[in-house]
Amino acid sequence: MKLQRLEPGVRKHRSDQVVVEEPLEIRMEYFDGAAWATRSVSVTMRTPGHDVELAAGFLFNENIVTERSQIREISYCRSDGPQEYNVLSVRLRESVPFDPQVLTRNFYTTSSCGVCGKASIEAVEVRGCEPIPQGTLAVGADIIDRLPDALREGQTTFERTGGLHAAGLFDSSGVLEVLREDVGRHNAVDKVIGHGFLEGRLPWTDRVLVVSGRTSFEIIQKALMARLPMIVAVGAPSSLAVELSRRFDLTLIGFARKGGFNLYSGESRVLDWENPGL
Amino acid sequence: MKLQRLEPGVRKHRSDQVVVEEPLEIRMEYFDGAAWATRSVSVTMRTPGHDVELAAGFLFNENIVTERSQIREISYCRSDGPQEYNVLSVRLRESVPFDPQVLTRNFYTTSSCGVCGKASIEAVEVRGCEPIPQGTLAVGADIIDRLPDALREGQTTFERTGGLHAAGLFDSSGVLEVLREDVGRHNAVDKVIGHGFLEGRLPWTDRVLVVSGRTSFEIIQKALMARLPMIVAVGAPSSLAVELSRRFDLTLIGFARKGGFNLYSGESRVLDWENPGL
Repeated sequence: MKLQRLEPGVRKHRSDQVVVEEPLEIRMEYFDGAAWATRSVSVTMRTPGHDVELAAGFLFNENIVTERSQIREISYCRSDGPQEYNVLSVRLRESVPFDPQVLTRNFYTTSSCGVCGKASIEAVEVRGCEPIPQGTLAVGADIIDRLPDALREGQTTFERTGGLHAAGLFDSSGVLEVLREDVGRHNAVDKVIGHGFLEGRLPWTDRVLVVSGRTSFEIIQKALMARLPMIVAVGAPSSLAVELSRRFDLTLIGFARKGGFNLYSGESRVLDWENPGL
Repeated sequence: MKLQRLEPGVRKHRSDQVVVEEPLEIRMEYFDGAAWATRSVSVTMRTPGHDVELAAGFLFNENIVTERSQIREISYCRSDGPQEYNVLSVRLRESVPFDPQVLTRNFYTTSSCGVCGKASIEAVEVRGCEPIPQGTLAVGADIIDRLPDALREGQTTFERTGGLHAAGLFDSSGVLEVLREDVGRHNAVDKVIGHGFLEGRLPWTDRVLVVSGRTSFEIIQKALMARLPMIVAVGAPSSLAVELSRRFDLTLIGFARKGGFNLYSGESRVLDWENPGL
């Protein structure tokens, strides 16, 4: 990408990479009881790459699919025209029900004034999420301290463009297992979880999710769906991210930078610095 | 918010502020030709404050309203139950049409494989956006250089929590006129533009929008709706943000930090460093 770089007294032409952002449309192909139907369920702006994982992670996190076996095939749209690789078709098995209203249901609901953080948290419970159990994971503070650097070292694009979010899956000894990048924070997490879903590795009850940015309600919700017991974020959490984590006993860490971090919830899974334990 | 701070050999209890994130539901009250109807159009996670501006900016940027006069009233939901201030009702004037399908239309469209960045850009043209004219704004590079610091100095919450995005409106001499913060990048921009919409100040053809984060397609689209000729971002732009800016001749600046910045589009509105000009 050509650009001008301006510094005091200087205006020079140069070329630099920028993060690619392109729309991805996800379409469901499903049997409605009488015939096969197709329905577009999402158009999201994303960085191309690992699109199948992104689609799978999105559908899993939205509770539209719960098992790998429900999906017959995920493939780019076939056409005689130009193929942009920006439309993915997710073909469900004939026996798997799909309610096309599920994604627009938000727009038809409550008649009260009661939408609030509490209601948002309860909506996660309604999806069947239960608290994360104790005893499946314990990580030393000094291992946690190394995770943000390990995530960053694993990133290929970030250093060049400065514009990509990353999400990484680590084991309890700090080994990086899955790394995904995207222009959107949520997409990077969807790609990681979609990978686990497609590989049949969920629930991830003994793994740590590390994210390069901030944590919001939605990021915590996705982690809960994958049953991840710990999130380590380089950025700050929101109030609702902390509240949701506490309600479901998920370990939430923020401001994780070399030399220290903040622990907001699920304290017992973090072992003291002097005693890495594992 | 109580938390634990862990540093090498240290584990101490402390209390810190975190950014508030709460859902906001926006409901339209409109006359459907026979009777008044109510329809929920959006639930977004936001930081409370300037909610009326957020709702107005959202509706303006989505092209649901185009003039202040189309709105009769924006008010928090009235109820006998607990008032959470998380539901806003936007009452249109009786003569103003509203199509409740407008926000779900995405989900019913294309049968081709053609969704792509180009199509996304064309969709902005279909909304009636035209290129930003030349000659309404010129800003010296040294003024631009000071804008990110000026934005940050204007922020009250950022320093304390590190978790809020900011969007600010500046005049061509670098004076801050409107500053809004939010846990969501898009919301901060919606609040600023909503302010201009409600105050009858749009189009903003001689102003500069400064944002604390990255620029994506959607941020540029919002700026185009308000006819802003220049965006200065502390973070990186995406490929589609650059393409959209070039198509509509909007001046796009990224990586703006004290001492230099990158200029991706609309170069003629930026005057050389040695010659601030204004």
